[in-house]
Amino acid sequence: MHGLNYIGYKLSGQNQKYIHAFSTEANTFLPGQFRVATNTETEAAVQKASRAFKKYRNTSGDQRALFLDEIAHQIINKEDELIERAMRETALSRDRIIAERSRTVHQLKSFAKLLRDGSWLEPVIETPDNNRKPNRKPDLRKMLHPIGPVVVFTASNFPLAYSTAGGDTASALAAGNPVLVKAHESHLGTNELVADAIIEAAKITGMPDGVFSSLIGSGNALGQELVKHPLVKAVGFTGSQSGGRDLFNLAQNRKQPIPLFAEMGSINPVVLFPGELKLNLKKVVKNYAASITLDVGQFCTNPGLIIGINGKPLDGFIKKLSKLIRKSSSQTMLSENIWTNFYSNRQKALEQKGVKLLTEGEGHEELKARPTLAIVSGKNFVNNPHLAQEVFGPFSLIVVCNDDDELNQVASCINGQLTTTIIANKTDIKKYRHTVQEFKENAGRLIFNGVPTGVEVCKAMHHGGPYPATTDARFTAVGEDAIKRWLRPVTYQDCPETFLPEALRNKNTLKIYRTINGKLTRKSL
Amino acid sequence: MHGLNYIGYKLSGQNQKYIHAFSTEANTFLPGQFRVATNTETEAAVQKASRAFKKYRNTSGDQRALFLDEIAHQIINKEDELIERAMRETALSRDRIIAERSRTVHQLKSFAKLLRDGSWLEPVIETPDNNRKPNRKPDLRKMLHPIGPVVVFTASNFPLAYSTAGGDTASALAAGNPVLVKAHESHLGTNELVADAIIEAAKITGMPDGVFSSLIGSGNALGQELVKHPLVKAVGFTGSQSGGRDLFNLAQNRKQPIPLFAEMGSINPVVLFPGELKLNLKKVVKNYAASITLDVGQFCTNPGLIIGINGKPLDGFIKKLSKLIRKSSSQTMLSENIWTNFYSNRQKALEQKGVKLLTEGEGHEELKARPTLAIVSGKNFVNNPHLAQEVFGPFSLIVVCNDDDELNQVASCINGQLTTTIIANKTDIKKYRHTVQEFKENAGRLIFNGVPTGVEVCKAMHHGGPYPATTDARFTAVGEDAIKRWLRPVTYQDCPETFLPEALRNKNTLKIYRTINGKLTRKSL
Repeated sequence: MHGLNYIGYKLSGQNQKYIHAFSTEANTFLPGQFRVATNTETEAAVQKASRAFKKYRNTSGDQRALFLDEIAHQIINKEDELIERAMRETALSRDRIIAERSRTVHQLKSFAKLLRDGSWLEPVIETPDNNRKPNRKPDLRKMLHPIGPVVVFTASNFPLAYSTAGGDTASALAAGNPVLVKAHESHLGTNELVADAIIEAAKITGMPDGVFSSLIGSGNALGQELVKHPLVKAVGFTGSQSGGRDLFNLAQNRKQPIPLFAEMGSINPVVLFPGELKLNLKKVVKNYAASITLDVGQFCTNPGLIIGINGKPLDGFIKKLSKLIRKSSSQTMLSENIWTNFYSNRQKALEQKGVKLLTEGEGHEELKARPTLAIVSGKNFVNNPHLAQEVFGPFSLIVVCNDDDELNQVASCINGQLTTTIIANKTDIKKYRHTVQEFKENAGRLIFNGVPTGVEVCKAMHHGGPYPATTDARFTAVGEDAIKRWLRPVTYQDCPETFLPEALRNKNTLKIYRTINGKLTRKSL
Repeated sequence: MHGLNYIGYKLSGQNQKYIHAFSTEANTFLPGQFRVATNTETEAAVQKASRAFKKYRNTSGDQRALFLDEIAHQIINKEDELIERAMRETALSRDRIIAERSRTVHQLKSFAKLLRDGSWLEPVIETPDNNRKPNRKPDLRKMLHPIGPVVVFTASNFPLAYSTAGGDTASALAAGNPVLVKAHESHLGTNELVADAIIEAAKITGMPDGVFSSLIGSGNALGQELVKHPLVKAVGFTGSQSGGRDLFNLAQNRKQPIPLFAEMGSINPVVLFPGELKLNLKKVVKNYAASITLDVGQFCTNPGLIIGINGKPLDGFIKKLSKLIRKSSSQTMLSENIWTNFYSNRQKALEQKGVKLLTEGEGHEELKARPTLAIVSGKNFVNNPHLAQEVFGPFSLIVVCNDDDELNQVASCINGQLTTTIIANKTDIKKYRHTVQEFKENAGRLIFNGVPTGVEVCKAMHHGGPYPATTDARFTAVGEDAIKRWLRPVTYQDCPETFLPEALRNKNTLKIYRTINGKLTRKSL
């Protein structure tokens, strides 16, 4: 481990201040001293990104596709060194880290594919009408353009897929924007290896110096400095609600406000309707025991809230789920900080009026979390907004509603969510159509008879949702459409063919769908 | 004039506090006493909008298209009463008001057409793969959904096209969101007539009570109350930079921040390159004299900044343009407030270091503005950010650059703009390619050899731009894509066919383009 910052292609470590990575599994510091970026280094990185943008924005989709593919290749090239470092820094299993690496590579390659396809540019052309009265209709051509340097805050719970070369970085680079990554303090070594891979790929594919930088920070100072910098044009963030909101406020209070896309997790309500529950009790229970405890519940889509109507089917579910959770064992969390917060937030939740601890898993070791089930009445839930807050980790609160009316009340006081899950058969959906509609209103994704954990990376995915799930419900953090966060439309009026971007020229050399005079077509003009 | 608020279908005037409309042309108050909405009335309107949303979100595209078409019809039905009231309240000409009415009707009809077409829903479908290992690939279907009640702030300079039934209202209603309009204090009668038309249309087409409300306010209180209301989900604003920014801050500092789309105008730089200027001097001068003075310069796309390189062609342009402007006469402005601001902002600009008054039109009457040309060196412009600020009205500042380098420096310190115009022939574009690129970077629309005034309403139009032109460069306020401001994607995972919205069902009954497994198609599944 060199422990240095990447200021574009240049390795730099001006500071004498170090931080270290920590293994929660081994309860010990890991090798490597990581030098905190100085203000001068941060400033140099942003300036380089801004200069690089002037070249990078003019690269073709094919050139950027080669770059992204090469990043994927370089990540695979890191082989076991990367897998093992990520395991040690996160306490996640080998299988999980390997799966995450596949996902990271898949994301990079899917953006490369999108770039080669080209239709993401959304070209629209209106041909002129020189004879129109009273005014001539001009020639108008519009498409999406990159916006400038993007800052990426890496996610604690996805050391690869939502970190240094994760979804935010891949989509911002694909769009034509240089990226500045703030390394996550809890996986500094993983960041270094992936940053190496990106820099190597940039050099091999001839990208401009400054297209990527990686900076090491301690506390909030570096992140705040980056978000406030006038040359930074957008920010991607994955993390806690308080952290995301603080940065959002900073970004909006700048002289020039910028989009700050924060994905802040949610409690992902699961609504159990009686018909389906009766029919498939065993399956539902098994799925949920697994979903709650998967990777120590450290997913933004962890089912933190389970809602049902009082009665035999729900009783059966609670009994069987409790039994499985009781048998589950505690597991090591991602970081000391996350572990401390899990127990303090769990405690706060359990202290609320009417909340009872139902059951918990085994084990009391330091840095490990016990899967926990609590229970509360619908009435108490409706009257206490605190209960709609996330406890990050393997914690689920079961809300028992007295009747259909109380269920509707619960539906109407649910905050914005990444996902809401409906466990229902056809009869349930017919009977509770209005209730399901209400739950849909605050969800980014509505899942039927599944579990919220597991987010497919594809164009049909929307990983977003109303606040506080994210700061902007109009955009997704997962899937190809994530590229839209880092683009803005520009219209060219009566522009000479020689100055038009390739996608807007008369001849459709990219062979993409374009909207010409209101019709989608691949024909040339 | 009844002078009342519309709380949905209900006319209401609880307050004893009145305001009046004023005619700057006649320098007198106009008939009608307009009752300021009380807090109770405002609250009732928002509650009604929120309840109406539950029904309105489920109306079909065809139903909403009928509604929009009927609004257009009802506006035309107001005949001369509307035209004359708008003329008296704005001092704009009959021709201009009639043209604006045509534009308003065109906008409503073009959103109706978009609704009937249906492809604006952007449906994306990924079919499942039950045999995929290690996890089954689910069935995922995504499309855009309305977000809830939208507040519209009407524009002083567009009493019809960007006011009560203007672009913001039409696009928000088209998207499936109820609208609450804050009537503009300077065209209260016009607002009332158009609000009547919308309410009539809503009743005729069976829209839910609360789909539209119109509220009268005095000062900032009503607007602030609306923006802060938790049930309001988005805001459209057209107006000044300070007003837009204040409301933006309010919207972002809410517990749940909401999109506030403010279009705050800009100085719309025009860059004169020597080749084209030499060739077509007369035409360019004539176009610009007309564009600067058009409707007293009261357009968000008024050319407030003209930039050129020192030399014979620019000298000729300045001389000829001065001559035309000197001959132009002063004209009545929209409101007393706008008139006062014009002269105080003009004065501030003229007092800046190195700025000289070149020439001005004739006349010194109250409430009328004299077209004004001022001049400054490129060096002084670069060193003084104040000169990049808008003087709303018929004012243009000519920036004379010493050489190409200075022109590039000017390009790099231009703020975000709705439009930037390039006056250049092929040789100019070849020589100044990099400079034109720099100007493009901060423009929403790049116009070649035309004038910025005149904004075509069509899908290829982008009327937006980086801050401070707007608060969100990713969206347009004009054209069909304006609907995207009021929508958010929702993904349905393994959703039963009976609960899926029509656009996502297997059978493509709407016959629209859908992206199925990565391919655009109109086929059914």
